[in-house]
Amino acid sequence: MIYILDLFGVAVFAITGGLISGRKKMDVFGIVVVALVTALGGGTIRDVILGTTPVFWIADPTYVVVAVAAALFIFAFARFSELWPEALLVADAFGLAVFTIIGAQRAFEAKVSPLIAIILGVMTGVAGGIVRDLLCGEIPLILRREIYATASLLGGALFVTFSSLNIKGGAITVGAVAIIVAVRLAALHWNISLPVFAAKDEKPSGE
Amino acid sequence: MIYILDLFGVAVFAITGGLISGRKKMDVFGIVVVALVTALGGGTIRDVILGTTPVFWIADPTYVVVAVAAALFIFAFARFSELWPEALLVADAFGLAVFTIIGAQRAFEAKVSPLIAIILGVMTGVAGGIVRDLLCGEIPLILRREIYATASLLGGALFVTFSSLNIKGGAITVGAVAIIVAVRLAALHWNISLPVFAAKDEKPSGE
Amino acid sequence: MIYILDLFGVAVFAITGGLISGRKKMDVFGIVVVALVTALGGGTIRDVILGTTPVFWIADPTYVVVAVAAALFIFAFARFSELWPEALLVADAFGLAVFTIIGAQRAFEAKVSPLIAIILGVMTGVAGGIVRDLLCGEIPLILRREIYATASLLGGALFVTFSSLNIKGGAITVGAVAIIVAVRLAALHWNISLPVFAAKDEKPSGE
Repeated sequence: MIYILDLFGVAVFAITGGLISGRKKMDVFGIVVVALVTALGGGTIRDVILGTTPVFWIADPTYVVVAVAAALFIFAFARFSELWPEALLVADAFGLAVFTIIGAQRAFEAKVSPLIAIILGVMTGVAGGIVRDLLCGEIPLILRREIYATASLLGGALFVTFSSLNIKGGAITVGAVAIIVAVRLAALHWNISLPVFAAKDEKPSGE
Repeated sequence: MIYILDLFGVAVFAITGGLISGRKKMDVFGIVVVALVTALGGGTIRDVILGTTPVFWIADPTYVVVAVAAALFIFAFARFSELWPEALLVADAFGLAVFTIIGAQRAFEAKVSPLIAIILGVMTGVAGGIVRDLLCGEIPLILRREIYATASLLGGALFVTFSSLNIKGGAITVGAVAIIVAVRLAALHWNISLPVFAAKDEKPSGE
Repeated sequence: MIYILDLFGVAVFAITGGLISGRKKMDVFGIVVVALVTALGGGTIRDVILGTTPVFWIADPTYVVVAVAAALFIFAFARFSELWPEALLVADAFGLAVFTIIGAQRAFEAKVSPLIAIILGVMTGVAGGIVRDLLCGEIPLILRREIYATASLLGGALFVTFSSLNIKGGAITVGAVAIIVAVRLAALHWNISLPVFAAKDEKPSGE
């Protein structure tokens, strides 16, 4: 069940990677690369930092197949992508939620402290999108726009708190996923943002 | 023999890194850093993902010495670099080919599935150049321009297919390298590109 | 003692990450992410390349707590940051020095060759700042501006040379740290730069 959701998250993230790279005039190979990095990057960085190598998609190439298929699909049908932008945003929120909880769970199984499990969960959820934006020449949107990683942080913290108390099971997992999706969609709907920096000096010191 | 070719690929990739970073007005230290990342980045990421750490250039610092020497050479003689741009493109194609096949071979030896061996081969060939372009503030050219990684993909797939069938030996290796070089040079000569994306909406959603 | 200095370096680097990302209009989450990457990125890449995983901040979350606290502090008090720009530059030089020597020491303990220990020391000192600048959409300043990594290189080379000769102890460590700080501050004071590239052709080949 979690596995199916995980593959669903991979497909959705690959599609966002394909869409953003395609709009940057990348060719079909570039689109597949960015889709793979978006879909698999967060979990790869988590596994590398934890030292659980070879990383997850080497043991199970299904992840790679799903991501490549999703990227080729969006390459072929991109012209129709404006038909369902809202569906994509909802799906992306699901992907964020599933990746966060799976990341936190794997970190927890690796016996790290709760704080680190939360961080690795958020990292699994957002790092792929950050690298995607870097490859596309953008300052990562996740670091600037409406509440995104904050939703991941809230759900991840809740999940890890319950897991630390040895309260586990499907209900906790589903609840944590639902909270991330709900917070993310609420932030989108009401356009809620976190505060930004209020430095007087507007020029970067190094320029 | 493969080792000599590998060091040759390191030198060539270091030179491309040095040239591109030098044109960005980096100082000599920046040029050496970008040269090292370009030359060693692909193999480093491959080793980290496979978990074969410490990575290859820690066990054999010759790679580092060659890359630094090539970077200092290009720093000293950059003014003459326009004398042999075609030689550099041919040498770069050789580097791409050698790195791809060595990457695929190391992955194969680590008992990964054929699909993953192909991906890690391509990654070894192209990841250094992608990070080089990121450090220089560019959207990676490899993701946009004429067939480059596609050549790597074709040769890598061929090599892994034969290796999977237990058909090995120098002829296969040389043949796969030759195919990558030939496809890359043909693409350069006839200016062949892969198709790009045809989305109607031209503006990135996040801007 | 070294541990306290290390945490001090983490705090200082987190503050530089927070300041630069805040000026890019990132939200508070983005500021914390960039601060964490700046403070912990260099050591993380070193540990991953050496294969000493899980990386250092997983075993000791104090590093994460210090970096997050420093980022939130600078978020809250950024408007006062112009009161002490020189203090920050001096502190940053200390951070660079401490990270370099700790990085070189950990590499040395992992039995790598002296050249590699120097490289991993410099990497520990500068990689966090490079990724910080990438996340903020800048060509890394460390690769372009006044002597910075060169100071790290000098102190790291000295430290590794003495360590290789089995001459160890607090005096060597303190001396190497002091040299890095002194070279860095001298470069800032007299505005000393390394030479840049003198290619005739000013346009990147790929554009």
